[in-house]
Amino acid sequence: MPFSFELIAEDQHSQARAGIIHTPHGDIPTPVFAPVGTQATVKTLTPAELHDLGASLILGNTYHLYLRPGADLIADFGGLHQFMQWDGPILTDSGGFQIFSLTSLREVDEEGVTFRSHIDGSSHRFTPENVIAAQEKLGADIIMAFDECSPPEDYEYNVTALARTHRWAERCLAAHRRSDQALYGIVQGGVFADLRAQSAEFLTALDFPGYAIGGLSVGETKAQMHAMLEVLHPLLPRHKPRYLMGVGSPEDLFECVGRGIDQFDCVLPTRIARNGAVFTAQGRLNLRNARFAADKNPIEPDCRCYTCRHFSLAYLRHLVIAKETLALRLATLHNLHFILEIMRRIRQSILDGTFAAYKSAFLTTYKTVDSRR
Amino acid sequence: MPFSFELIAEDQHSQARAGIIHTPHGDIPTPVFAPVGTQATVKTLTPAELHDLGASLILGNTYHLYLRPGADLIADFGGLHQFMQWDGPILTDSGGFQIFSLTSLREVDEEGVTFRSHIDGSSHRFTPENVIAAQEKLGADIIMAFDECSPPEDYEYNVTALARTHRWAERCLAAHRRSDQALYGIVQGGVFADLRAQSAEFLTALDFPGYAIGGLSVGETKAQMHAMLEVLHPLLPRHKPRYLMGVGSPEDLFECVGRGIDQFDCVLPTRIARNGAVFTAQGRLNLRNARFAADKNPIEPDCRCYTCRHFSLAYLRHLVIAKETLALRLATLHNLHFILEIMRRIRQSILDGTFAAYKSAFLTTYKTVDSRR
Repeated sequence: MPFSFELIAEDQHSQARAGIIHTPHGDIPTPVFAPVGTQATVKTLTPAELHDLGASLILGNTYHLYLRPGADLIADFGGLHQFMQWDGPILTDSGGFQIFSLTSLREVDEEGVTFRSHIDGSSHRFTPENVIAAQEKLGADIIMAFDECSPPEDYEYNVTALARTHRWAERCLAAHRRSDQALYGIVQGGVFADLRAQSAEFLTALDFPGYAIGGLSVGETKAQMHAMLEVLHPLLPRHKPRYLMGVGSPEDLFECVGRGIDQFDCVLPTRIARNGAVFTAQGRLNLRNARFAADKNPIEPDCRCYTCRHFSLAYLRHLVIAKETLALRLATLHNLHFILEIMRRIRQSILDGTFAAYKSAFLTTYKTVDSRR
Repeated sequence: MPFSFELIAEDQHSQARAGIIHTPHGDIPTPVFAPVGTQATVKTLTPAELHDLGASLILGNTYHLYLRPGADLIADFGGLHQFMQWDGPILTDSGGFQIFSLTSLREVDEEGVTFRSHIDGSSHRFTPENVIAAQEKLGADIIMAFDECSPPEDYEYNVTALARTHRWAERCLAAHRRSDQALYGIVQGGVFADLRAQSAEFLTALDFPGYAIGGLSVGETKAQMHAMLEVLHPLLPRHKPRYLMGVGSPEDLFECVGRGIDQFDCVLPTRIARNGAVFTAQGRLNLRNARFAADKNPIEPDCRCYTCRHFSLAYLRHLVIAKETLALRLATLHNLHFILEIMRRIRQSILDGTFAAYKSAFLTTYKTVDSRR
């Protein structure tokens, strides 16, 4: 089996875990944060830069790539690794979330979903079977079951959608052929402990090689999200990786690693970079701020990223104000370095038995609103 | 004197010359093409990438940098080299061309020019003295006299403007203090041989360390541009560098090196990249073209740039169509590599005595319209 999860250490004072996911394209030390490369590119960066940043897993999106340039075309190139020239592990999302958040006029039935492309309005249909086929064509190391994403606080909706998501999970498993890909099941159930427990139980019985937790970070409170993770922790198999989809702010990483999560992805570091915002140990900064106009300091004095080793806040602000593309690159490099470095330190702290201390130190300094200076 | 021009070889069959410009920030092998970094960044690229491309001189623009972030601010950072973290030679244009092409409501008088910023409409005044002062603050290795750019085919206008440009050249020389910068005079005179000759004669008498040729590539024909270079060749001092401003298409490089030009700059390679167009030995390609949708070849099979060593035309087209920033970067890298590599080969061919053969071989294959495939 080219895919396996090796559990290396478990924290004494929380549910934090350190491990390694072995894949056909290399090892992924966990907990891991995966930069998002929706359209076969992690926005603004080259594969060489992602390697330099120490990224060990990146995401692609089946919904976007199916629409453009098309899964058959990518298959003809030997898959997504070859097409985008990233030779490390890749995970593709199944497109469930995108269909329910990006498209219009979608119609769900037992068989699948009919929807209109957000690009040109053309009509398409996804079923568990053709989504798995598309992901086999894309050829990622980790692929996702096709699920129905529900408004997190509508109980009746969640009951109905969850039952369908479970039937689709079985169909995904049955449809999946490639032995060099790990297919993860996706636990749904909104903010409802009973539904989440039911989902974990159902999917665990199907024996997926990994479990994703979907439908969180979509409008519910942090407390609700944490409560769901606490419900799931004892129910999910200890020796399988756990992936919290779409979550990855600095504070989320600490809180959710501490609740047993091994895998994260989030557009936050790349998206805020494109708005001129950057992470620091004290919180987010907006580079447009006039107080940086003559500031000779880097974003963070002790940061080892390319941006901080070379450029002043004043120069970065100038690039943002002048709408220069280099601004997007330099902010993206810093933000991904920041998040990936946090993850490396979290992992080391779990191995060292110092996770609680590191979490406490980080969260004491880090403000979730822009407050520095 | 930290600035000097060393003439190394002269072609037997044309006016092509090979040399070295020595500057405080390093040597510039000539003929040289300088990538344009108008706003203290060569669009989309880092200084590290410019070094990897072999760029030996880049441009900044006094007009843009004076307006934003301001010459005083850059001076406070130790100059443009420090501010943008490029440690190689820099040339700043004086802003004359920009004032006459970008700004509105400009009024020229004997003393200087009053104009409105293209950014916010604010009113500003440039004089030979304050433009030199601004360029001393920016601290480039090569700086330019402040000139008046004229419509190339209006004789009366050119007569008046040229006389003023000459008086301004004298004032620039008188105002210039920094001994670590070379101030070039700018030959003007439109498409008129008598005015160009008069300008060369006047400026040569002032003994500038280098001579720029301005006001070409602004609407006149190639034949008119070549005729002006042929007029100037015998009149400009043999042991001073000659800089043809704003010119740098592949075909222009061959034609104008053959007419004695040592220095070029042009936004073409970076600008067309942002529109999805790339250079090849057969001419320009537009990456948007549907014929590239499934093309596994690189832009050029034998090109050694990062883009061509890794990515297919199909992937590049996908990035362009999906409006991904990486498309701009990869096209810019290729186009600058293409132009800088041509320049390296031109220089070597001058040293080898094979310039005519290389020029003929290149221009036989290169189509100035997009015609390949």
